[in-house]
Amino acid sequence: MSKELWMEELRGIWKKRTQYDTAITLLHWDMDVYMPEKGLQATTEALSLLEMQNFETLVSERNGELIQQLKVAAVYESLTPEEQTMLNLFEHEYKKTKIIPPQLYDRFVRVVAQAQKNWQKARQASDFKLFREDLSEILTLLREFAQIYKANFPCEEPLDAFIEDHESGMTAKDIRAVFSRFLNPLVELVEKIREKGNPTPNPLLFKVKEKTQVNLCHTVLKKMGYDLAGGRVDFSSHPFSIRIGAGDVRLTIRAKESDFTESFYSAMHEGGHALYEQNLPEPFLYTPIYNPSSSGIHESQSRLWENIVGRSFEFWESFYPALKKEFKSYDIPALPEFYKAINRVEPSFIRTEADEVTYNLHIILRFELEDALLKGDLAVDDLPLAWNDKTKRYLGINPTKASDGVLQDIHWSMGAFGYFPSYTLGNLYSVQFFNQAIKQIPDLKEQIRKGNYATLLKWLRENIHQKGNLYAPLLLCEKVTGETLNPDYYMTYLQEKYTKIYDL
Amino acid sequence: MSKELWMEELRGIWKKRTQYDTAITLLHWDMDVYMPEKGLQATTEALSLLEMQNFETLVSERNGELIQQLKVAAVYESLTPEEQTMLNLFEHEYKKTKIIPPQLYDRFVRVVAQAQKNWQKARQASDFKLFREDLSEILTLLREFAQIYKANFPCEEPLDAFIEDHESGMTAKDIRAVFSRFLNPLVELVEKIREKGNPTPNPLLFKVKEKTQVNLCHTVLKKMGYDLAGGRVDFSSHPFSIRIGAGDVRLTIRAKESDFTESFYSAMHEGGHALYEQNLPEPFLYTPIYNPSSSGIHESQSRLWENIVGRSFEFWESFYPALKKEFKSYDIPALPEFYKAINRVEPSFIRTEADEVTYNLHIILRFELEDALLKGDLAVDDLPLAWNDKTKRYLGINPTKASDGVLQDIHWSMGAFGYFPSYTLGNLYSVQFFNQAIKQIPDLKEQIRKGNYATLLKWLRENIHQKGNLYAPLLLCEKVTGETLNPDYYMTYLQEKYTKIYDL
Repeated sequence: MSKELWMEELRGIWKKRTQYDTAITLLHWDMDVYMPEKGLQATTEALSLLEMQNFETLVSERNGELIQQLKVAAVYESLTPEEQTMLNLFEHEYKKTKIIPPQLYDRFVRVVAQAQKNWQKARQASDFKLFREDLSEILTLLREFAQIYKANFPCEEPLDAFIEDHESGMTAKDIRAVFSRFLNPLVELVEKIREKGNPTPNPLLFKVKEKTQVNLCHTVLKKMGYDLAGGRVDFSSHPFSIRIGAGDVRLTIRAKESDFTESFYSAMHEGGHALYEQNLPEPFLYTPIYNPSSSGIHESQSRLWENIVGRSFEFWESFYPALKKEFKSYDIPALPEFYKAINRVEPSFIRTEADEVTYNLHIILRFELEDALLKGDLAVDDLPLAWNDKTKRYLGINPTKASDGVLQDIHWSMGAFGYFPSYTLGNLYSVQFFNQAIKQIPDLKEQIRKGNYATLLKWLRENIHQKGNLYAPLLLCEKVTGETLNPDYYMTYLQEKYTKIYDL
Repeated sequence: MSKELWMEELRGIWKKRTQYDTAITLLHWDMDVYMPEKGLQATTEALSLLEMQNFETLVSERNGELIQQLKVAAVYESLTPEEQTMLNLFEHEYKKTKIIPPQLYDRFVRVVAQAQKNWQKARQASDFKLFREDLSEILTLLREFAQIYKANFPCEEPLDAFIEDHESGMTAKDIRAVFSRFLNPLVELVEKIREKGNPTPNPLLFKVKEKTQVNLCHTVLKKMGYDLAGGRVDFSSHPFSIRIGAGDVRLTIRAKESDFTESFYSAMHEGGHALYEQNLPEPFLYTPIYNPSSSGIHESQSRLWENIVGRSFEFWESFYPALKKEFKSYDIPALPEFYKAINRVEPSFIRTEADEVTYNLHIILRFELEDALLKGDLAVDDLPLAWNDKTKRYLGINPTKASDGVLQDIHWSMGAFGYFPSYTLGNLYSVQFFNQAIKQIPDLKEQIRKGNYATLLKWLRENIHQKGNLYAPLLLCEKVTGETLNPDYYMTYLQEKYTKIYDL
C-alpha cells in the first residue's frame, strides 16, 4: 500500500471518531441543558457504549500498524509537514490511550463516580472527612497512571503526566517557574487594593428580568462575531461551550436575576471559547489538527474577550449606550462608576466568583497543593489546613467552612489533576496575545472604542484559531508573539489597570 | 452453551441497539427542535455512522446462529411464552433486515433523498411534473423490495410488504375489508353535515399569546398523567413525540397565535402517544417487547386522548373552567357554543387540518391510490386526476392546486407506502377501546366530567401500554375487547355525536 492510502485510512479513522464525538457531545450537552431528570440512565448507557466504541476506534491493532508503517523514516520524510503533525498527534493520542490497562481505567471510572457523590455530600455538610478516603484512593490511582506514563514518555514528576493532557510540551517545573515570576507582585497588588478598599457597595446589584439579560447577551455575542447560524445560547447551572461538530458550536450562560453581569460575562467568556471553535481550520476537518492547541490557549480566548476587552474602558465607551438602550427602565450608574463596578476587586473564598486580580491566586494555591499531594509531600489529612494557610497568605482571608475552602471545586473529585494551571496560563496568554495584536494593529483600541471588534476577531482567527492544533501552546505563543510565554505582560497589565482604578 | 446464555446474549444485543437508539433519537430530536442550521452536516454524518452500526448489530452472522440454536424445537419449547415472543420478534427484525441487498438499500436512500428535495420544489411550484419521475423511481424500487419480501415471507400483494412494518399481521386485503365497511356511511354523514353547514364563522380564531398557550398545554398534559420528570415539551414545525430512552419520552407542539386549539390538540395528541411510551412494560426493557404493538395502536392512544376525550362534552365540563382561568383576558364563547366550535366539520383539502369526521376519507383516498400505484393499476401520470376525482367523490370538493392535493404529504416522497392506513386504524381502535373501558368502568364518563383521568390512564396502562409488543395489533384488540377490529363502533360514535351537534 502507498503512503497516500495509509494517510487516507488514518483520516477515515479520525472522521469516524469525529462522528462519534458529535453524538457524544450532543448527549453531554442535552444532559446539562434539556434532559429530564429520569432520562439520566438512558443517556449514561448510550454514552458508555459510544465512548467505548470511540476508544476502540482509536486503539485498534490496525492503527498501530498504520502508524508504524508511516513512521518508517523514508515514508515519514516524504510526508508534508502538516501530514507529519497529523500523524504525530494521532500517534500520541494512540499511545497515551493504549498504555492504560483497561482494569485500571475501569477502577478509576468507578472510584471517581463514587468520589463525586461523596464530594457532593461532603460539600453539603462542609465536612472534609466525608471525602478524604475517596481523595486518597484517587491519588493512589493517579500515581499508578503517572508511573505507567513515565515508563512510556519523557516525564519527570507525577503531575507532568496530567499536565501533558492540557498543555502539551509543558511540565510542572515550567509552570512553577512561570508562576513564581509573578506570585509576589500579585500578592502585593492585592494587599494594596485591600488597603484602599471599596468605598461604596456594588451599584450593579439590582434585579434585571431574565429576558432582558438574554437579549443583552445576544447583542454582545453578535457584535463579537459569534455565528448564531452555527450555534445557540441556552441556560445551564455551569456555563460552558461545546463543539457538537463543525458548524455547530453551542454555549450556555447562567442568569442571576440580582446580578446581570453574571450572565453578561458568562456570555462573553463562553463566546470567546466558541469563537475559537467556530474558526478552526476547515481544511483540517476530520484530523487531529482540527482542535484547539491547549486548554490554556482556549482559556486565553475566553479571558481575552471577557476581561481584556469586556472589562476595558474602551469597550464600554461604545457598549454602554447599547446597555442603556436594552436596560431602558433600569437605573444604570454613570460610565466611570460603572467601569469601576465591573472591575471591583475583593478577595473572596470562591474561585469561580473571584475578580480578575485575585483569581490567579486561587489557581496558584490549587496548583501548589495538587502538586504536593501527588508527590506525597502533603498528606490528605493535612490538606484542609494547608488550604486555609495558603488562602490567608495569598488572599488575606480565612475560610471558615470547608465548603468555602478545600471542598469548593469538583475537579479533584473527578480525578482532574493538572487542569487548574491552564486557567491562569490562559490569563497570561490573553494579555501577551492582545499586546501583540496592538503592535500589529495600532488603532485596535480605537476600533474597540467605536464598537468594532471585527479586526480583533480577524487577527485572532488568522494567528490563533486557524492554526488549530498545528503547534503546541508554547510554540504557538512564540509564532504569534515572537517570544515564549512571558508573565510580565500580564502583571504589567494588572498593575497599570488597577493602579488607575484604585488610585494606588 | 445453554439456552440461558443464548437468551442473555440476545438481550445484550438488544440492549446495545437500545443504546444506539438513544443517541440516534436524540440526534433526530435535536435536528427538529434546537440544531442550528449549519449543524446539519455533522448531525447527518453522526446519524449515518450510528445507523450503520445499529444495522450491523442486528444482522451479524452470530445473531443468525443464535436464532437458529434457539429455534431448535426442543430448545424453543423450553422457553417461556415471553421468551418465545422476544425471540420471534428478534428473528423477524433480523430476517426482514437481512434480506435487503445493501446496494438496493443504498440506492433507495439516495433516491428518496433526491425525491424529497424535488417534492418540496414541486409542492412550492404546485407542479406535479417536477416530482413524477422521482415517484416512478421510488415505485420501481418499492416493487423490488416487495418481491424480495415475497420470496421470504408469506405475502400476497406488494403493499403487504410495507403494511407489515406498521401493522404486523394485517394485509392490504384486511384493510380494504375494514375500510369498505364504513366508506359509504361516512361519505353520507359528511354529505348530510355539508347540507346543514355551519351557521357562524369559527368563534375560536382569536389571538392568544404563545406563553399562555404553552401554559394551557402543560396544564392538560399534567392532568392526563404525562410525567414531566421523564419528558419535556418543545416546539417544532411538525409536532411529534419521541422516546429517547426509558424515562425520557419527549413531545413537541406547534403553536399558531391565531388558533390556540392547534397547540392544545397537538399537546393532547402527542401526549397520548407519549403516555403509551412512558408506560411500556419495564420488565421487558432492552427487549423487542419494550415497544408499541403497532403504528395503528399507537395512533389509537393519541386519537383517544385528542378526540374521544379531548373533544367530548364531558371533558370540557371540567376543563372549561381551567381554560377560562388560564385565558382570563380573552373572550371565550359559552360552553355549548365552544363545544360545537371544537367539533366543527368542514370538508377541506389538507389532511393534517381535517376534522374528526372527514379525516378518514383523506386516508381511504390515499390508501386506494397507493395500492393502485404499487400494483401498476394506476399510472403515475394519471395520479393527479385520480386524486382530484376521489376528493370530489368522497369530500365533495375540487382541489384547484396540486399543492392542495396530490403534493400535500411528504410520505410518498420518503418511500413511506403503507403507512397511511394506520392513522384510520388508530381512530377505529380508539373508539373500540374506549367503549370497552366504559363497559369495565361504568362511571368513566362521570369521572372525565369531574376532570379525573387517572382511572382511564390506569385502564389504558394495564390493558394496552403494559402489553408492549407482546401481541400483534389484531390479537391485542381481541385480548382487550373480546373481538377483532370492528369499525362499526367508530361509525356509530361519529353518527351519534354529529347527529346531535348538527341536529341531523
